Amino acid sequence: MKKALILVTNDDGVMAPGIRNLVKFMLELGEVVVVAPDKPQSGMGHAVTITNPLRLEKITVEGGHDEYSCSGTPVDCVKLAVNRVLKRKPDLLVSGINHGANSSISVIYSGTMSAAIEGAMESIPSIGFSLLDYRFDADFTQAKKYIQQLASNVLEHGLPKGICLNVNIPAVKKTEIKGLRVCRQARGNWEEEFDFRKDPRGKDYYWLTGRFALHENSNETDEWALANQYISVVPTQFDFTAHDLIPEIKKWQFDAE
Amino acid sequence: MKKALILVTNDDGVMAPGIRNLVKFMLELGEVVVVAPDKPQSGMGHAVTITNPLRLEKITVEGGHDEYSCSGTPVDCVKLAVNRVLKRKPDLLVSGINHGANSSISVIYSGTMSAAIEGAMESIPSIGFSLLDYRFDADFTQAKKYIQQLASNVLEHGLPKGICLNVNIPAVKKTEIKGLRVCRQARGNWEEEFDFRKDPRGKDYYWLTGRFALHENSNETDEWALANQYISVVPTQFDFTAHDLIPEIKKWQFDAE
Repeated sequence: MKKALILVTNDDGVMAPGIRNLVKFMLELGEVVVVAPDKPQSGMGHAVTITNPLRLEKITVEGGHDEYSCSGTPVDCVKLAVNRVLKRKPDLLVSGINHGANSSISVIYSGTMSAAIEGAMESIPSIGFSLLDYRFDADFTQAKKYIQQLASNVLEHGLPKGICLNVNIPAVKKTEIKGLRVCRQARGNWEEEFDFRKDPRGKDYYWLTGRFALHENSNETDEWALANQYISVVPTQFDFTAHDLIPEIKKWQFDAE
Repeated sequence: MKKALILVTNDDGVMAPGIRNLVKFMLELGEVVVVAPDKPQSGMGHAVTITNPLRLEKITVEGGHDEYSCSGTPVDCVKLAVNRVLKRKPDLLVSGINHGANSSISVIYSGTMSAAIEGAMESIPSIGFSLLDYRFDADFTQAKKYIQQLASNVLEHGLPKGICLNVNIPAVKKTEIKGLRVCRQARGNWEEEFDFRKDPRGKDYYWLTGRFALHENSNETDEWALANQYISVVPTQFDFTAHDLIPEIKKWQFDAE
């Protein structure tokens, strides 16, 4: 059997511990190529770089596989990898392991998930992994087995066109993980508070801060899974259409004048 | 009746002709407050600024209404407007008029639509407007009547929580517009080609280019509407869950070990 070709990227930057762990896990499953941002790109959503040129630098971190550092966003990394770096379409794209959660509504702000969604848009079976631990020295190994099994399942079963997986891992010990829950994105949002300050020159500025507010208690959601020490797995797609609302809006009155 | 409070933003920057036109159209419908990026933010997707401070400057462009220029992304503008600028939740958020299309898959890359989606996430009835004309001197007036009628309809009917409208306008004369089509996001993607160059110092760089590829011929889509000189109206939401796939993935085999 031909060795699986696995593209690895992230949004915390190519040297972040999360991606270094993910590269190691994937090297046990196939041939790995890394194309990841040269600096942190958290919160970049599905941003692409269209008004600036992109740099792509071959780097050597460890081992014999190919690695590239890119000046752009996670989505830029995927596009460049597919168009300029890889000789063929990869069998799997994995993004992460993110330092911090990308559950519920955070999926839309997430650079980690934007890379996985871009993979799905390019018909590459893709998974985004996030660990609910922001610390630089977070333990990324507790879910190694699950991460590898998810990757193996996707390599074996594929994923329907346009769908990727959003996988979040609770920050608990390996023995405390209760298993996987396939679930849906919880309804919730970020309630912002802008920290208002003055700079040394006396000019105003703001820092975005905030806290996540969960709007439901269903046990069918990723937030429930994570709060109960399960790894959450949400099949994720990029059709933004609110299909149910189309007939309703068709009833609105317009006159062409 | 209390005058409607309308928040206006965009992704082409506060001085772009598209937003200047939109502000004029909205001033005829209610009280307007503008909070928009201080520079172009095209292709920023749902990016937020979390590792840098944000600047917000009161500016005067024309008329007596309040306008603010913000150093951040379109999503930052919405968050700052709601949390720091506006005295109450606006009755309507309008974003645009974008210079260029945001139909089909472009919705996910669009700064214009990210602002409208963020509005929906904050339970503000929101609409993103885009004109299929990239030129600085594009004519933004041909769809004035439709834009005002859509805004009036949303002010009157509201929109269900979490849903906004993605409105694209064909670049044709006013008399050639056939009307509105409520439709869905077409299946399609961007096929990239990276233009490879060398800078004056001999170092490699890439420019992202590409062309849109439509993957279907249905007349239920925004692409069909626009190609046939209709204004497309897509109800747009931010639940990324591929609900239909949940039962399928639940069948996959995992051993907890």
